[in-house]
This record gives sequence, C-alpha cells and structure tokens, in this order.
Amino acid sequence: MKARVYVSIKPTVLDPQGQTICSALNGLGHKEIASVRQGKYFEIGVSEETSRDSAVKILDEIARDVLSNPVIENYRVEILD
Amino acid sequence: MKARVYVSIKPTVLDPQGQTICSALNGLGHKEIASVRQGKYFEIGVSEETSRDSAVKILDEIARDVLSNPVIENYRVEILD
Repeated sequence: MKARVYVSIKPTVLDPQGQTICSALNGLGHKEIASVRQGKYFEIGVSEETSRDSAVKILDEIARDVLSNPVIENYRVEILD
Repeated sequence: MKARVYVSIKPTVLDPQGQTICSALNGLGHKEIASVRQGKYFEIGVSEETSRDSAVKILDEIARDVLSNPVIENYRVEILD
C-alpha cells in the first residue's frame, strides 16, 4: 500500500524560506507569484499485510510524532491504494 | 488562485534521506513501513488577475526551471481554485 504525508507550516507561522523563494521568483520576472510556502512531502510504502484501517492509524501516528512538529506544522495523510 | 507543486526524486535515483527515515521508523517499532521517499512541496499563491491557463503555463515553467532539478526529480502541479 502506498501513502503520502504532506507537512506544511501553519498559516500563522512565518516561513522565511518560502518568502525567499517568492522574492527570487519575482526577481526572475514571475511577478504573478504572490506568495510561496514550502513544506515537506513523504511517499511511504506500507507492507501489504497491513489493513487499510490500521495503516491510516499508524500513518497518522507517524505523521504526528515523527514527521511533523505539531506546534508549528500541520500534516495531511493520503492513502493511495 | 492557489496552486501546489510537488517535487519528488525519480524512482531510479537513490534517496538516502528517505532510507534513513525508514530505518528510524522501523527502529521505533513501526515495522509495517517498507519504504520512505522524501520530496518537497510548495504552496503558491498566484495573483487573481492571472487566468487559469496562463497560471498553469507559468507554474509548469517555474516547477521545471526553479523548483526542481529535472535530471533527478519529477514534479507535479495542482491548481486548487
């Protein structure tokens, strides 16, 4: 089973890396770009014996405890098949 | 208009960072996790005057030329509204 976990910085938290990318794009002539925020993205393979329900539970736990910092980041889990 | 750009390492390219996360998760007791690959994720705000068609064109150009390295990475652009 394949899953994807997306981790993004909460909207209330400053993202200097994204702001730098935004200024760089504006400087390169892409004036249409108003904002950029950078996040992380994980493609996770789960062993086939795991049921979908337990995969959802495990991945939620992993995303919360290991892949993200819940104080400043949001996460989203997507099961593919 | 909001858009998302996902950049992931091509399947044929080694991802030591993902392998390290996978071993760490296995070590923490999550034996169900078979593989992890890490990518990048950008949330991009495009100015409202830009039409959807030209936004798609601009974002594809930005994803190819600035946000990813096409030699080792794939990208995917998603327009939200």
